[in-house]
Amino acid sequence: MAEDGLGRDLLEDARELIAGEAWARLVALVSSLHPADLVDLVLSLEEADRRSLLDRLPTDIVGQLFEFVEDDELREFIRSVGVEDLPAVLDEVEDDVAADVIQQLEPEEQAETLAQLDRGDEVAELLQYGEDSAGGIMSRGFVALNEEISVGQAIEYLRVLRPASEKAYYLYVIDRDRRLQGTVSMRDLIVSTPRTKLAEITQHDVHAVRTSTDQEEAARTLQRYNLLAVPVVDEEGRLEGVTTADDLIDVLQEEATEDMYRMVGLDEEESASTPIRQTIRLRLPWLMVNLFTAFAGAFVVSLFDSTLEKAVVLAAFMPVVANQSGVTGTQTATIMVRSLALGERRMSITRILLREVFIGFTNGMVVGVLLGMIAFAFTGNATLAVILVAAMAAASAVATIVGQMVPLGLRALGADPALASSIFVTMCTDAMSFLFLLGGASMVISRLE
Amino acid sequence: MAEDGLGRDLLEDARELIAGEAWARLVALVSSLHPADLVDLVLSLEEADRRSLLDRLPTDIVGQLFEFVEDDELREFIRSVGVEDLPAVLDEVEDDVAADVIQQLEPEEQAETLAQLDRGDEVAELLQYGEDSAGGIMSRGFVALNEEISVGQAIEYLRVLRPASEKAYYLYVIDRDRRLQGTVSMRDLIVSTPRTKLAEITQHDVHAVRTSTDQEEAARTLQRYNLLAVPVVDEEGRLEGVTTADDLIDVLQEEATEDMYRMVGLDEEESASTPIRQTIRLRLPWLMVNLFTAFAGAFVVSLFDSTLEKAVVLAAFMPVVANQSGVTGTQTATIMVRSLALGERRMSITRILLREVFIGFTNGMVVGVLLGMIAFAFTGNATLAVILVAAMAAASAVATIVGQMVPLGLRALGADPALASSIFVTMCTDAMSFLFLLGGASMVISRLE
Repeated sequence: MAEDGLGRDLLEDARELIAGEAWARLVALVSSLHPADLVDLVLSLEEADRRSLLDRLPTDIVGQLFEFVEDDELREFIRSVGVEDLPAVLDEVEDDVAADVIQQLEPEEQAETLAQLDRGDEVAELLQYGEDSAGGIMSRGFVALNEEISVGQAIEYLRVLRPASEKAYYLYVIDRDRRLQGTVSMRDLIVSTPRTKLAEITQHDVHAVRTSTDQEEAARTLQRYNLLAVPVVDEEGRLEGVTTADDLIDVLQEEATEDMYRMVGLDEEESASTPIRQTIRLRLPWLMVNLFTAFAGAFVVSLFDSTLEKAVVLAAFMPVVANQSGVTGTQTATIMVRSLALGERRMSITRILLREVFIGFTNGMVVGVLLGMIAFAFTGNATLAVILVAAMAAASAVATIVGQMVPLGLRALGADPALASSIFVTMCTDAMSFLFLLGGASMVISRLE
Repeated sequence: MAEDGLGRDLLEDARELIAGEAWARLVALVSSLHPADLVDLVLSLEEADRRSLLDRLPTDIVGQLFEFVEDDELREFIRSVGVEDLPAVLDEVEDDVAADVIQQLEPEEQAETLAQLDRGDEVAELLQYGEDSAGGIMSRGFVALNEEISVGQAIEYLRVLRPASEKAYYLYVIDRDRRLQGTVSMRDLIVSTPRTKLAEITQHDVHAVRTSTDQEEAARTLQRYNLLAVPVVDEEGRLEGVTTADDLIDVLQEEATEDMYRMVGLDEEESASTPIRQTIRLRLPWLMVNLFTAFAGAFVVSLFDSTLEKAVVLAAFMPVVANQSGVTGTQTATIMVRSLALGERRMSITRILLREVFIGFTNGMVVGVLLGMIAFAFTGNATLAVILVAAMAAASAVATIVGQMVPLGLRALGADPALASSIFVTMCTDAMSFLFLLGGASMVISRLE
């Protein structure tokens, strides 16, 4: 049984062999690794060493590696293999893997590589589907059986076809026009009499998606119905490919990362390995937006500069109230974004809204009373304490409304509900906090001076 | 081919039939639904109607539903079925599904229900594994073949066993002590001569986990090696069960939700359907923590009250600088938390740290210069503008350090790196921002008055 993950020792051994230029021994060492582990090893090496190792590995092994390279490391990996060596390697992989790799190349490189592939036409066909569509991630490696053949013929066909086991967990049944009719199980094939027609044992409750369907929807179909693969059909219902759990799991993971990133104004393309210059460029736009949204708070504060001049102690409490309502609003927004992403089932917006406002107000009161007591202990000013309680409760209640309205508003505008939601929420909660705190204080300023 | 999701019309129809008490027609209507869709329908009904419908459905159909109820709706669903009706229903489901359901009951109810089950002992055995362990989510429904039998015997055995197709995508091979040896594919069975021993065609590179392994690790093994199921073995390597992609996908989704929630101080148990009182109780502790961390900022501000008295305009810029470094710090923390969760491969902490500081400083400078220009345009005070640029650049650079140190520090303390990280980050970035802005201003206060 294999050990999971890449042992430290292995990497050390590999580096030693490289230092001693013992390439033949290195190739022997790594050939027994699982491709997923070998990918890790290769990416842990220096650029020049990667190249030397990959050049010495048989093309079919390098091909296998491509199936286990993560999306955000794919470009780097292609560079290590070398674009000129790609055609030989890609001839060894499934069409959908080849299409993913070619998608990463420059247009001229794409054409050139495709021209050199044995199955260039089939790969080019896959490239026409949108990168984020079910067509773009589907595999052509599926088993389809015509409904008019018999069980005996089907078994004979499978014997000749020798599908890899991971392709044969769903056997799809199609009609003579290649339209998807349903599935048969291996079990049903084994237990039925050889002359039974497939049409008689076909299970018709199959959940398919279109080639143009968003890959996230395909992933949700898989998850919802506890499937291991979702078939992909064209406009006429003809079976074009299959999206499998291993690819769709990655889609769901990317989606979750995307939501987390977008909420705080990060681009989903970014990872710890993105080049610095690109990272700066990716982050700057939302920081600019944040600067301008922050002026909303600054503007409110500037309205009350005479109040602040008379009671500068308020300045110290500004960040306390703003922080609290900011957290409250972000919590609500996070729940909202995640609910929308996971497609939570029954939601009455009004009920949720009232619920959150009540929760925000109650917690704001509790925390506000505590804050008021602390403020009274330090300043001895009861009016200040009362204002803090009121501002905190009001700001927290409003924060929950904001936390819901921002994602819902973004969605209504056709944007991703997560998009910089935390930046927009904080803008509103800051401004509201300062308004409640300083506005409240200005009304009773004579008691605060 | 079935349509995905639950049609609005269907729910309307169901409600109408309920209003007219046409239960027989309702049962006929819903019996053709996919269990996942029927679960949705049931949970969309009023409590009393749910009960009436579930009482009228055959126990095997109700049993199927349990496989498609989401974790956070399970308790609600059990209540609708009724604890007294559970034994009859659970006799129809897989042991692991029964165990999941029973886990949700009160201790006395658990014992009582178990006692009435046909396979109570087997289910009780599953209950002994930790809820979050691979043992706790594994299914007993797998196909294991002894390595000493022949291909012909294996096929005959499968013919008699009639495993459901979704259980037979991996055929596990065990030795006479039930220790996992590897897998054989259906393809290899079909193409090998009947007298071949299974041991000869067994593929040994199988990735298994222990019953005590955390379910998240099982999920990552599945994802890393692009598997559809991960076998679970005991301390002696004996095959105990199988965790499948459909369950492990849910684990990965929950993990992502957990990270998002924890970062902002939300409990992962919470969802839009958590009772209000419980929600208040779940959120309050972190809001309290946030209150006290916010005092760090307030304390720094209070140190500079004489500076603020002399130049109250600074109060308006406080939230602008604090916000910007808060977002910068939270962005870095988000990348860090997600990288740690996804187990990003090669990370040199020092390199990442320097990288982020450089990015933070650069973006802080750019945004700071913009802010300085705006401040100069409004106030005509060049000193203020320079202080803003400096404070913004310094606060942003420090924010990136904080954004990394908080998750890493939490992990070093044995806590979840995501745990309230955004609250701790904001505490530090607030305090730093006020220190740089007000501290800087206090040094040149004569030019600001």
